[in-house]
Amino acid sequence: MLDFTNDYNEGAHPRILERITETNMEQLPGYGYDRYSDSAKEKIRQACACPDADVWFLVGGTQTNQTVIDAITPSYAGVVSAASGHVSVHEAGAIEATGHKVLTLPSPNGKINAADLEQYCADFYADGNHEHMVYPSTVYVSQPSEYGTLYSKAELTAIAETAHKYNMQLFLDGARLCYGLTAEGNDLTLEDIARIVDVFYIGGTKVGALFGEAVVFTKHNSPAHFTTQIKRHGALLAKGWLLGLQFDTLFTDQLYTRIARNANDKADQIRAALRAKGYSIAYENTTNQIFVIMDQPTIERLSENVRMGFLEKYDKAHSVMRICTSWATTQEHTDQLIALL
Amino acid sequence: MLDFTNDYNEGAHPRILERITETNMEQLPGYGYDRYSDSAKEKIRQACACPDADVWFLVGGTQTNQTVIDAITPSYAGVVSAASGHVSVHEAGAIEATGHKVLTLPSPNGKINAADLEQYCADFYADGNHEHMVYPSTVYVSQPSEYGTLYSKAELTAIAETAHKYNMQLFLDGARLCYGLTAEGNDLTLEDIARIVDVFYIGGTKVGALFGEAVVFTKHNSPAHFTTQIKRHGALLAKGWLLGLQFDTLFTDQLYTRIARNANDKADQIRAALRAKGYSIAYENTTNQIFVIMDQPTIERLSENVRMGFLEKYDKAHSVMRICTSWATTQEHTDQLIALL
Amino acid sequence: MLDFTNDYNEGAHPRILERITETNMEQLPGYGYDRYSDSAKEKIRQACACPDADVWFLVGGTQTNQTVIDAITPSYAGVVSAASGHVSVHEAGAIEATGHKVLTLPSPNGKINAADLEQYCADFYADGNHEHMVYPSTVYVSQPSEYGTLYSKAELTAIAETAHKYNMQLFLDGARLCYGLTAEGNDLTLEDIARIVDVFYIGGTKVGALFGEAVVFTKHNSPAHFTTQIKRHGALLAKGWLLGLQFDTLFTDQLYTRIARNANDKADQIRAALRAKGYSIAYENTTNQIFVIMDQPTIERLSENVRMGFLEKYDKAHSVMRICTSWATTQEHTDQLIALL
Amino acid sequence: MLDFTNDYNEGAHPRILERITETNMEQLPGYGYDRYSDSAKEKIRQACACPDADVWFLVGGTQTNQTVIDAITPSYAGVVSAASGHVSVHEAGAIEATGHKVLTLPSPNGKINAADLEQYCADFYADGNHEHMVYPSTVYVSQPSEYGTLYSKAELTAIAETAHKYNMQLFLDGARLCYGLTAEGNDLTLEDIARIVDVFYIGGTKVGALFGEAVVFTKHNSPAHFTTQIKRHGALLAKGWLLGLQFDTLFTDQLYTRIARNANDKADQIRAALRAKGYSIAYENTTNQIFVIMDQPTIERLSENVRMGFLEKYDKAHSVMRICTSWATTQEHTDQLIALL
Repeated sequence: MLDFTNDYNEGAHPRILERITETNMEQLPGYGYDRYSDSAKEKIRQACACPDADVWFLVGGTQTNQTVIDAITPSYAGVVSAASGHVSVHEAGAIEATGHKVLTLPSPNGKINAADLEQYCADFYADGNHEHMVYPSTVYVSQPSEYGTLYSKAELTAIAETAHKYNMQLFLDGARLCYGLTAEGNDLTLEDIARIVDVFYIGGTKVGALFGEAVVFTKHNSPAHFTTQIKRHGALLAKGWLLGLQFDTLFTDQLYTRIARNANDKADQIRAALRAKGYSIAYENTTNQIFVIMDQPTIERLSENVRMGFLEKYDKAHSVMRICTSWATTQEHTDQLIALL
Repeated sequence: MLDFTNDYNEGAHPRILERITETNMEQLPGYGYDRYSDSAKEKIRQACACPDADVWFLVGGTQTNQTVIDAITPSYAGVVSAASGHVSVHEAGAIEATGHKVLTLPSPNGKINAADLEQYCADFYADGNHEHMVYPSTVYVSQPSEYGTLYSKAELTAIAETAHKYNMQLFLDGARLCYGLTAEGNDLTLEDIARIVDVFYIGGTKVGALFGEAVVFTKHNSPAHFTTQIKRHGALLAKGWLLGLQFDTLFTDQLYTRIARNANDKADQIRAALRAKGYSIAYENTTNQIFVIMDQPTIERLSENVRMGFLEKYDKAHSVMRICTSWATTQEHTDQLIALL
Repeated sequence: MLDFTNDYNEGAHPRILERITETNMEQLPGYGYDRYSDSAKEKIRQACACPDADVWFLVGGTQTNQTVIDAITPSYAGVVSAASGHVSVHEAGAIEATGHKVLTLPSPNGKINAADLEQYCADFYADGNHEHMVYPSTVYVSQPSEYGTLYSKAELTAIAETAHKYNMQLFLDGARLCYGLTAEGNDLTLEDIARIVDVFYIGGTKVGALFGEAVVFTKHNSPAHFTTQIKRHGALLAKGWLLGLQFDTLFTDQLYTRIARNANDKADQIRAALRAKGYSIAYENTTNQIFVIMDQPTIERLSENVRMGFLEKYDKAHSVMRICTSWATTQEHTDQLIALL
Repeated sequence: MLDFTNDYNEGAHPRILERITETNMEQLPGYGYDRYSDSAKEKIRQACACPDADVWFLVGGTQTNQTVIDAITPSYAGVVSAASGHVSVHEAGAIEATGHKVLTLPSPNGKINAADLEQYCADFYADGNHEHMVYPSTVYVSQPSEYGTLYSKAELTAIAETAHKYNMQLFLDGARLCYGLTAEGNDLTLEDIARIVDVFYIGGTKVGALFGEAVVFTKHNSPAHFTTQIKRHGALLAKGWLLGLQFDTLFTDQLYTRIARNANDKADQIRAALRAKGYSIAYENTTNQIFVIMDQPTIERLSENVRMGFLEKYDKAHSVMRICTSWATTQEHTDQLIALL
């Protein structure tokens, strides 16, 4: 059975396991105060061309979104997100669990835009009743978005400008960031992102690590006592060096770039095959998530040999299915899938 | 200057102040354990034809929504509301402050409907990913709605049936309930509501009291240790008899019906005048809130003599303004307003 | 039956009811934006000799403690309180409900002291593990304390200095403040308190008002968007002028001082009688709460004619009972109680 | 430099790394729905002789305490813990972050006892004011305790009986459970614990795993939608099989027993040496944490070659230091430490 359900179905890049094994019996301080974490932070700062950045490591994406948003958003304020944003839909209320409302904007193709954000804020502050409403304080975007689409440098810059105009911070969820960085047509580098946004994270769980997300506060702007805040969310890993080691490996010799490109290459092949065979794409993109419209008989036929994800009903007879490649997707599996389509 | 901004611009019905004054130096136990609260509860049970009801008194509407929803909704679950619902828009995140997400349905005319609720739940439970989403556990409706519109008995019954089908409780916010009970065309009595919903409240703040909302758990279904839960929300009034006295007065000789009808009568006169003069109504209703579309010059002209509320922009040249009557609106003020229109 | 259970068993000073009645049909803006609230704030600023103070009105004590502490304490931090403090023991977890831990100090006679606070902070910051602990950020004291005792000017000043040394704010709960201001031996004036602490409140519920607490941020240091924060806690009274009117009345011609002194005068008489008859006082103080040790037969005998409060078991045969006077306690009731003792 | 600071300074038992490496490229479903997690759960049920148990895997201890306590404790209620309990002192307020108060009992030697618990509850329910207090709903114990001490079967049974008498659930934190199970004098087996308590967890982080805690609801009593509750706390590991694999390995051929015993053996040797050399033990126990009283010159001398933990000041001249062994402690390091003492 082929599995194209998601990009976290395999373990880690072998080099990561080698290093965990090599260092297994070293005695290291806990909670991220180890030399591997220090080294990984320095490599990330360099990759971002951002010497002032504060780098932190957490275990998973929802945990990171919850911890960061809670830390940078005043207790009475909320976070603006695409209606389709992960924090809005698929985190089981983790943001609200910390007392913050998720304020949603329409999200064609999974993205918000500066004009909608501007209108939202202008309406909010124009309305004499806004004292009884939730102040927008943080703006959340995902790159790539939940539909695999990408913000351009111009789009992200405009969102940041609007955010800052209204005294909001811009937080970028990069759970799949490396698949965006290496996608065809992308014009946003890691350096750009570090310059434009206030805080973002580089996902490891979906791009070659066993687990782990590297949070970057780009202007030396870590929240006060952030280690304590991480601990309070139950998010402080005792053996923190496991996170440091993984990111140190990914950011050595640009491993993260190389393995991310593999996912996009395989996705490009599948996309080309889908088009050639007359399938329609629901959300056009160039990253590792393909959202394809399939009729029910096709879904049933394929399901005998391939696992895919279900996104949503398209109409009575069709659904939007997700085919997801990853750093680990092999050419052999890709060829088999294409043959089956 | 005339004031039609809202229905809580004056104090209380004079009979309420008389009784507070008469009993002022009586020594009474605090926190609602007094004879006036007991008497008021019994009168409300009778008015609802609901001998099993548990009745509680709180001070204000947002406080009541927060306390009740938090008490009846599991920590990991959310409350379904109209997108225009008070809990969704105008409570400054009071629901999220207790950890619960507000899940919104489209709300033409301020109301949700059973079909949308059914679809929402069917989609939720059909989606294999719903473990990562917020369970809908409570359904919130306002009667009258935030746009002054009313649920019919059939509509509310259908919503209740859908709610119960999906193991949700139905909570009705009656901040302006008495203006609905006495509106033209209304077919939902207090007895009906008590039979159909799981918990609701009868608003006092906007209908003749200084403050106060009477919460009715209709099936002897008060949450465990509800006094403690009220206290934990900072919502337990020390001199609780002030609430009991007010509701005891409102539910003596049907005072609440008589004073509520005044608001609707005055609103009907204003509506008739608006129609006669060619104004358009944005949200047709028969209760005490009139949402009228006005152009900017008219708004400016009227604002010299009348205070109104602003709801929203209608288009570049027009806004939807709210004219709100109350139990206290006089014929004299009504005539003056009509003359100005 | 005599009632000395507490100081909120009667309504309000008659002058307050008169003014509420006089202004009942005036049309006033809601949420505290009325002229009576403005007037009351100005009178409080003058009484505090604190022209920079920001004054806010809330309904009850627990609500005020919850709202203020949540607003001034970072989400990851806690509030230091006497182990016997109201926020620690008798608020049903209202502080924890907002995510903050109550950090307790021993409290002989209901008071904390600067030396214990200094030691607590010194230990906290000396301990290398404090990143895994709750940062002390706010210090909470009650004046008078829950045992009726009073901080002296020197004691409160020392606590404030220690608090500020460790970057904490000092918050004083004055639910019964006026009974302290007018007590024999008290050397802390309203002006002193406004100068020493960062925020405090003047209780109305227990001193002549129907309800209401006046919060004073003494250095023009209101939290951002505090109206919104109050609303989010369900604590924003729609008819806010009811609070303004009450405090305006209490702070006209020093009514609050005169009525508070009555409570202390009556308590002094009772204390003298208790001593004369050989009773022991558990917590010596000069305010309106008398904590007296009684044996079970005495308690039972008195309970036929007098209601008192129970504080705690003293030993197998004795309990500490509370006799509480108020602004409303009459000489007649006082004489009757003394005769019964 | 020798490191005896804690028991999470090394990676994992080599067999665990081997299995992670062997299965690295298998395609597995996420979130714990994989065959290795199933297998591990079954082995744990067998080791507990508890076929009805529900087993769940989380990443870390604080996260587990937060998630479990929040799930089993009503929103308005609290958790009773030793004053020295991890949830009370060293979790940065993670319990309060979810709205629950930690109610503390005195804890000589780190343990609570049934008599104190009984008294606490009897006082609580006897006091007429308990409606204004936090209901005790969950009882938290650590085995071994934070001071390395052990509950006997009789002690734990008595605590459970008292808890159940007052309608509370008993939750046992077993972050170091295996070091208790294999300690000299211990009479509590895994089967006993599963029979006595309502929920407990078996720690992996400190006993041979890279990370991971196995939560056991012993009576098929998992909270509703517990996966969703885990997700809401940011605690759901995407690659959940990593947890399953580790516990499957630990519970194969009783690996967990064998490696835990190593820690206790080494600790016993060190304890014997300390006694022989005249050191005093602060908290006598037979597990892997040694709390020894040392004077400052000794601490300074040793710190040149050994890392230890600091617990607390003993007096002006002495401190209580922690020497902690683990599954990974070698005989060579043990001998070196003993030679230095």
